[in-house]
Amino acid sequence: MSKVVYNFSAGPSVLPKQATEAAAAAIADYANTGIGILEMSHRSKPIEGMVAETESLLRELLSIPSGYEILFLGGGASLQFCMAPINLLAQDASADYTDTGVWAAKAIKEAKRFGKVNVISSSKNSVYDHIPKDFKQTDGATYLHITSNNTIYGTQWKEFPTANTYLVSDMSSDILSRPIDVSKFGLIYAGAQKNMGPAGVATVIVRSDILGKAGREIPTMLDYQTHIPEHSMFNTPPVFSIFVMNQVLHWLKNLGGVSAMEKINAKKSGLLYDALDSSKLFKGTAAKEDRSTMNIPFVFHSSVVPTDKKDALEKDFLTGAKEKGLEQLKGHRSVGGFRASIYNAMPIEGVEQLVSYLCDFEKKII
Amino acid sequence: MSKVVYNFSAGPSVLPKQATEAAAAAIADYANTGIGILEMSHRSKPIEGMVAETESLLRELLSIPSGYEILFLGGGASLQFCMAPINLLAQDASADYTDTGVWAAKAIKEAKRFGKVNVISSSKNSVYDHIPKDFKQTDGATYLHITSNNTIYGTQWKEFPTANTYLVSDMSSDILSRPIDVSKFGLIYAGAQKNMGPAGVATVIVRSDILGKAGREIPTMLDYQTHIPEHSMFNTPPVFSIFVMNQVLHWLKNLGGVSAMEKINAKKSGLLYDALDSSKLFKGTAAKEDRSTMNIPFVFHSSVVPTDKKDALEKDFLTGAKEKGLEQLKGHRSVGGFRASIYNAMPIEGVEQLVSYLCDFEKKII
Repeated sequence: MSKVVYNFSAGPSVLPKQATEAAAAAIADYANTGIGILEMSHRSKPIEGMVAETESLLRELLSIPSGYEILFLGGGASLQFCMAPINLLAQDASADYTDTGVWAAKAIKEAKRFGKVNVISSSKNSVYDHIPKDFKQTDGATYLHITSNNTIYGTQWKEFPTANTYLVSDMSSDILSRPIDVSKFGLIYAGAQKNMGPAGVATVIVRSDILGKAGREIPTMLDYQTHIPEHSMFNTPPVFSIFVMNQVLHWLKNLGGVSAMEKINAKKSGLLYDALDSSKLFKGTAAKEDRSTMNIPFVFHSSVVPTDKKDALEKDFLTGAKEKGLEQLKGHRSVGGFRASIYNAMPIEGVEQLVSYLCDFEKKII
Repeated sequence: MSKVVYNFSAGPSVLPKQATEAAAAAIADYANTGIGILEMSHRSKPIEGMVAETESLLRELLSIPSGYEILFLGGGASLQFCMAPINLLAQDASADYTDTGVWAAKAIKEAKRFGKVNVISSSKNSVYDHIPKDFKQTDGATYLHITSNNTIYGTQWKEFPTANTYLVSDMSSDILSRPIDVSKFGLIYAGAQKNMGPAGVATVIVRSDILGKAGREIPTMLDYQTHIPEHSMFNTPPVFSIFVMNQVLHWLKNLGGVSAMEKINAKKSGLLYDALDSSKLFKGTAAKEDRSTMNIPFVFHSSVVPTDKKDALEKDFLTGAKEKGLEQLKGHRSVGGFRASIYNAMPIEGVEQLVSYLCDFEKKII
């Protein structure tokens, strides 16, 4: 009998069991056709229906208003870093960007190729440990770009700023974790491999009236307007990744949708933050008011664990965690220490086990 | 007991059973880690090892020389239509393109955005029913682009032309169907969803010394040189699609590699072409010397089936085929009639069943 494993990976990451079970079954035979989902034409009725249903589930779950289009595209959120400005930003126009982590910085780098970028705030000097919210938007800027949740540093926009025009957001690591007011956004994009599904597909939610104004020729595949009339079927889409997303969305809907999910996420992250705040050995690294409900980095108190003992003790912690089935807790190298990613699909039992292990480990040390 | 289904889809299409079975098993638990492959970090050792193995299997199977790099990218072959010229073609340079079908035409359309395109041959006027091989390359053209197999029309380059410089080829629908001399090519790209795996990943094989010469700024994700040093791990790659490809490559290697596969493909396509050539009811649509071993379009002889009876009889044929488990035989609308795609993974029994059905159907009609 294999032990239960709780997978705290920052992404690709844990998925609902019923979604992965449905995925495995669909590979053997999809919708009683005798053909597996990996082998089925994207132009077949079952697949076209599945993609359309995925679109409508997402629209329902995030209350996406009319006037917004939904796309499922290959290439990941990293491709969106250039697709967003190439579609939205005219050569002589500017856009405001907030620099809240390396992913935000990558978005900034790509946008600079297509127009003027105003970096109106940055927390880089403090290793992105907070969300700088005291900034001034630029008059005439086409949009304001934010990264809603910063996976590496465990910071999250709790309230979204109000853009002079509209927000553009990379929501890869917290989409579907809470209700959002889509009408504040012109464009939302998110790689699936954290809260939505497996790697291989990015979701794009775009207000169609902001398109077609950049005044440049756009390569066909990078043009949102190519994909909209084709419902993501201009070319062969990443069918299987969309199917797993479909199953994740069903799971989320059955569970009560994003409002119910928000409460669960508050409870799960609250458990872990409370444990960290009452610990003498561990502490969270992100500013309290910006703490993410998705990614929780933590380190040893440097007053308790001296620098020369740190590496060995971190190794002990991770080895002991692995023995208990608590996997992928190593922190990102830029923050160090540990990180627990507790996306939607992480069961509360996983967080409870982790908290219990933190306490046990602390008792051994202090 | 469900009947055996033979899936003649043009893509996504039939895969080896052992690959799909391994895929379903890996979703439950990958490499005895207790974590499923959809949920596993791409930076984990099992996944990094699997991607590296996939690369080396492909290198072995296609005898890819040193100096060539292998990439697995999202976005499909359609994204390669712009990535190829953006990386290879300087603004003031030109490239030669052969127009052998709508996919070739799409490649031409994208290349025109980045330099001068010389369409040096076309069979468009005869609905792409043959490969026009009588062309003159342009002095100074950077490369010669071909589509090695034309899925819709069932034509295939039997021998590759010798480029003045190097060939660039879309090999989406016949890669791994036969040995190729990679050294004739500067760049080969192929969507996986025909002969290599499921939708969601494109394979790129590129001679590294032709890169870095286009003299333009390239968006990070579109630059082959971004992905080469990272071994396709610059961002999260489509892990699962690569894993299925890995399993398909193992299957192909165990079967004897591409030379063995070429013989099997000759036998399978020979069976069907012989049946068509000896039929009084059916006939193939592609020029004999360019006949594809992968996609075989066929129609009713118009002398036997008058125009006003054609649609109804086509419907009868497809309905009867479906009853026998012969699926996805409808032809592409631009050619009409029927099309049997018999990629590597189509078992010879599927072709035998189809030939037998063709004979039976003919006996009923004539």
